[in-house]
Amino acid sequence: MPISKNNRTPRPEIPRKTIYRLSIYLRCLQRLLANGIHTVSSDALALAAGVKSPQLRKDLTYFGQFGTRGLGYDVGQLSRMMSEMLGTNSLQPVVLVGVGNLGTALLSYRGFQKEGFTVIAAFDNHVPLKHSKRFEQPVFPMDQLTAFAREHRVRMAILCVPPESAQEAANKLVEAGIMGIMNFAPTVLHVPEEVVVNNVNLAIELENLSFFIQH
Amino acid sequence: MPISKNNRTPRPEIPRKTIYRLSIYLRCLQRLLANGIHTVSSDALALAAGVKSPQLRKDLTYFGQFGTRGLGYDVGQLSRMMSEMLGTNSLQPVVLVGVGNLGTALLSYRGFQKEGFTVIAAFDNHVPLKHSKRFEQPVFPMDQLTAFAREHRVRMAILCVPPESAQEAANKLVEAGIMGIMNFAPTVLHVPEEVVVNNVNLAIELENLSFFIQH
Repeated sequence: MPISKNNRTPRPEIPRKTIYRLSIYLRCLQRLLANGIHTVSSDALALAAGVKSPQLRKDLTYFGQFGTRGLGYDVGQLSRMMSEMLGTNSLQPVVLVGVGNLGTALLSYRGFQKEGFTVIAAFDNHVPLKHSKRFEQPVFPMDQLTAFAREHRVRMAILCVPPESAQEAANKLVEAGIMGIMNFAPTVLHVPEEVVVNNVNLAIELENLSFFIQH
Repeated sequence: MPISKNNRTPRPEIPRKTIYRLSIYLRCLQRLLANGIHTVSSDALALAAGVKSPQLRKDLTYFGQFGTRGLGYDVGQLSRMMSEMLGTNSLQPVVLVGVGNLGTALLSYRGFQKEGFTVIAAFDNHVPLKHSKRFEQPVFPMDQLTAFAREHRVRMAILCVPPESAQEAANKLVEAGIMGIMNFAPTVLHVPEEVVVNNVNLAIELENLSFFIQH
């Protein structure tokens, strides 16, 4: 792990926004690599990522010392470090709970795989007898979640059930040992402190835009 | 508009998080109405929304005076006001740009419609000759965007093109008079000040979770 490699103890609390930007830097570095570019200055990388250069340098200080003055960053080394930090250097299994409209759309989305995540199965209270051809993953009843998650060492879940069922489903995810939940239900989930919830609500994002363009 | 109704001038800058919570309160109120409940205390509404009661009351102060001491809020009135503020009291047209995997998945998602938004058309540099049966909307070439957006008075767009094409596509959206962009590309868009961008990246949300469950 980079933390021990860099002998940095104890590591300061890293802002969530820094982690989001890390994902963006990683994508920029991957594009540079794909174009055969092996070193990059912090100014050029910041420009590609759409952030100011001091911001990039500050974000990187959380993870150790990178780059050589006058030479810039080693693109391959920096992207490997970021990928390792983000846990995307190996394919991580994810389960999806709630096979409604959005769940079905997400099951057919191939973009997660490209980024290091694979949605290996879906769970729902009502398993469709003959499930749609729109996605390939199997759908299981909720009571098989715990056994499945343990067997396949799943630690992350995508939750797309209606808001009134979201807390109950979240409780089952926690029971099943899930540590990270990407929650699409427009409700605030109560989970133990060690479980991380990222809320994403597509209609709410549109509403939010709608508010700001009106006022 | 509620602003003039309430004679509040000038209105203070409303935090974006308050607007997100407004969307959540609105959904709670709609569920209450559906269950035939017509008044609600701030404690009960806060509990349903998963926030603390002072937070709810503070959020509402941005929009005027609501509720009667000892009686609570009028559910219908409060939800109408919120819906009006968020611009979801009438169906708003939205265009989608970029019909790749995610774009296709989102075009088949019926959840936006329920929340007051209707994705009426999609645009792409490469219009599929025979487009998938997975969604109903027409797909047009990008050069028809401006005319279409003007004709249908479209002010919001969902952008799901690859990161390397995102800025160019955003420029075309701005040219076409779009004021709000929901950006799924993992890049920072540069747009004029009056245009609002909300960034949503599903793989990045998973990476972010992945980081926090590892560290």
